[in-house]
Amino acid sequence: MATQLQHARNGTVTPTMERAAAAENCPVGLVRGELAAGRAVLPANPAHPVPRPAVVGRRFRTKVNANLGRSPERSAEGEELDKLRTALEAGADLVMDLSVGPDVAAIRKELLAASPVPLGTVPIYEAVSRLRGDVAAMTPALLLDVIAAQAQQGVDFMTLHAGLLRRLVPLAMQRRMGIVSRGGALLAEWMLRHQRENPLYEHWDEVLRICREHDVTVSLGDGLRPGCLADASDAAQFAELDVLAELVQRCRAAGVQAMVEGPGHIPFHEIQANMEREQTVCDGAPFYVLGPVVTDIAPGYDHISASIGATAAAFYGASLLCYVTPAEHLGLPTAEEVREGVIAFRIAAHAADVARGLPGARAADDAMAAARMAFDWDRQFALALDGAGARRRYEQTRACAEASPDHCSMCGREYCAIRTSRRLHELRSH
Amino acid sequence: MATQLQHARNGTVTPTMERAAAAENCPVGLVRGELAAGRAVLPANPAHPVPRPAVVGRRFRTKVNANLGRSPERSAEGEELDKLRTALEAGADLVMDLSVGPDVAAIRKELLAASPVPLGTVPIYEAVSRLRGDVAAMTPALLLDVIAAQAQQGVDFMTLHAGLLRRLVPLAMQRRMGIVSRGGALLAEWMLRHQRENPLYEHWDEVLRICREHDVTVSLGDGLRPGCLADASDAAQFAELDVLAELVQRCRAAGVQAMVEGPGHIPFHEIQANMEREQTVCDGAPFYVLGPVVTDIAPGYDHISASIGATAAAFYGASLLCYVTPAEHLGLPTAEEVREGVIAFRIAAHAADVARGLPGARAADDAMAAARMAFDWDRQFALALDGAGARRRYEQTRACAEASPDHCSMCGREYCAIRTSRRLHELRSH
Repeated sequence: MATQLQHARNGTVTPTMERAAAAENCPVGLVRGELAAGRAVLPANPAHPVPRPAVVGRRFRTKVNANLGRSPERSAEGEELDKLRTALEAGADLVMDLSVGPDVAAIRKELLAASPVPLGTVPIYEAVSRLRGDVAAMTPALLLDVIAAQAQQGVDFMTLHAGLLRRLVPLAMQRRMGIVSRGGALLAEWMLRHQRENPLYEHWDEVLRICREHDVTVSLGDGLRPGCLADASDAAQFAELDVLAELVQRCRAAGVQAMVEGPGHIPFHEIQANMEREQTVCDGAPFYVLGPVVTDIAPGYDHISASIGATAAAFYGASLLCYVTPAEHLGLPTAEEVREGVIAFRIAAHAADVARGLPGARAADDAMAAARMAFDWDRQFALALDGAGARRRYEQTRACAEASPDHCSMCGREYCAIRTSRRLHELRSH
Repeated sequence: MATQLQHARNGTVTPTMERAAAAENCPVGLVRGELAAGRAVLPANPAHPVPRPAVVGRRFRTKVNANLGRSPERSAEGEELDKLRTALEAGADLVMDLSVGPDVAAIRKELLAASPVPLGTVPIYEAVSRLRGDVAAMTPALLLDVIAAQAQQGVDFMTLHAGLLRRLVPLAMQRRMGIVSRGGALLAEWMLRHQRENPLYEHWDEVLRICREHDVTVSLGDGLRPGCLADASDAAQFAELDVLAELVQRCRAAGVQAMVEGPGHIPFHEIQANMEREQTVCDGAPFYVLGPVVTDIAPGYDHISASIGATAAAFYGASLLCYVTPAEHLGLPTAEEVREGVIAFRIAAHAADVARGLPGARAADDAMAAARMAFDWDRQFALALDGAGARRRYEQTRACAEASPDHCSMCGREYCAIRTSRRLHELRSH
């Protein structure tokens, strides 16, 4: 069985490509061409039916990923399914299950069955969970077993921190915050304890064999992503990026789809250079960034600080944005925080798509402007990213107001600028 | 009595300059010099004691303004004072009272008495409110009376839409959304009804005489700011900017402090050019922008879409950011929405200050990184923009967790990347 990448190279258009192209409102040839060039990925493990596939690449709509998953001390039965539903309702294009602890396989099975969008994982979490957190006890064989089992189960994409080489750990330890990637930190500990190279890197050909067999898209994890502004764009980060670039080429040579993960925490003025560097070094492989947050002092509001960074990232080179919720740096999100995170990131993705001139991106904005001019509130709510939420705020204000819909409480009816603008047209026509 | 601008030109350092410099942690000579050059303003009407003055200019911390004020159909007795308190607690540097309707003078008096920060107004709102909304009945004399009365009452800065000349109205009427500035729309209607020039422009010397006498800082209103992405950066907007540039020079010549107002709604990729254009055309006069929002389809979340635009604006040239709340485009904000708007904009202002390398701006971020590495949660909450809110989210998560503070629920104790990073140091030292 061929991967989407191999099909694309062979000139074959798959049903998944057709569905992705229909969702993008673009010719399927564009999807096929970008996949063949490695500039896009289409995560779609044949073992997981994905009625809503997401093509990830610069020529397409910027996508949003929502992280779900349980930690040992947070999550009730069924809560992850609630969060999945919430994330999908809010418009997430892809989801990841980042669960650790007991029952990760069962949770993942539930989430896969319920998810119409591609689902990703970080296999080392399950490997270490099987060992009850004892990373030192992990073996390369166990890690490969987990990857194979998850691939078989239907996981569409996997974060693999194969670029965090042993020689790079000392670079990270000079930092203010060390390694803030959970998977990266676990691998670093394993390497130090055993004085051995990164097992994913050592066994990369075997990893690729599994991923090719199940068409798992590799998401090359940035185990050395900076954890604070002070660590951004440093030697550790860019040294790992160079390894990821090598691994992109090895994925492509093996017919395996590959994207690259990026930070994290970056001051606003460094975002452009970071995005351009990845696109150059990694030969146009799709860039999948986490935020980035643009300040460290906004816990409780990191969905906002990250959507600021994400807009710039998607404008300058990223194709997939991993959301950040208001719970970031404080704990795992509730379903409501999941919703807030997805909406904030849809704003970022859309604003960037408008700014980079993606065909058709501004149509909804222009329709909203027309609906506002017409005081067509139902149309405004239909066009809004969260129509129900907007209607609630509008009606909350109108509870104090008279019934007419031809204004809002911002200015009040007599002072409404839109009403005045409409009068101007009448005055001019007399 | 001299204005801060005149004092600065004379080489005089005022107590207000001293207080502003102390707050900026900069030499007072820098404040005096920037004021003298017209590159900064220090709104401080001597009739209004301002214990927390705000110097607005590129060499200083980016400031945030919170709009308060009642519309005829929204606001209960005392609500505006609540919102003022909320805005100040959240960290607003300046506030504006945008009330319309009866009792505007009384509301303003209350707000002025309660505000330790500079307070601004839009005098045409009171002029038209005195006429119960009948803008056609307004006379230039009435408008000047209002400006004089407000100046005497202690208003620190005033939005005056003097650049919206009669000849520019037809340009605005070709737009998708016409004129969305409430004051601009009222003036346009007055000009069309009376076939006369903008009364503020016609009587500009008289306006300047009043502002000089009371040291009211002129905020040159952008009556033609775009109201949607489609109208951004158009002929109407830039034609008005050219008039504002002329008025900046007339303010400076009269010894009156002046800043310039800007949009509004701008796609992300046009923000840099907009900021640079104002700085060039208006000879470095401080730019005071509203947002800008970077998409039209996020009602209910425009504090986020606007904080994205505001970060870019402050990075590329703005000095003062007018907040946008989640109620924007839907109604007047509640106190809670005021708080959310201020916090979102403090994130934008701070992220931009870090990015443009303002001395000392990143110190808080670096301290936060250290506190995170040390699991010093109290210090994290002390450094956070909203420490109480961050603590609430953290504790909500910890309710389900064991008691130890050396991790959070995001990863769980056994999988915590920071804990692992700390172990790495121990491993290396053996």
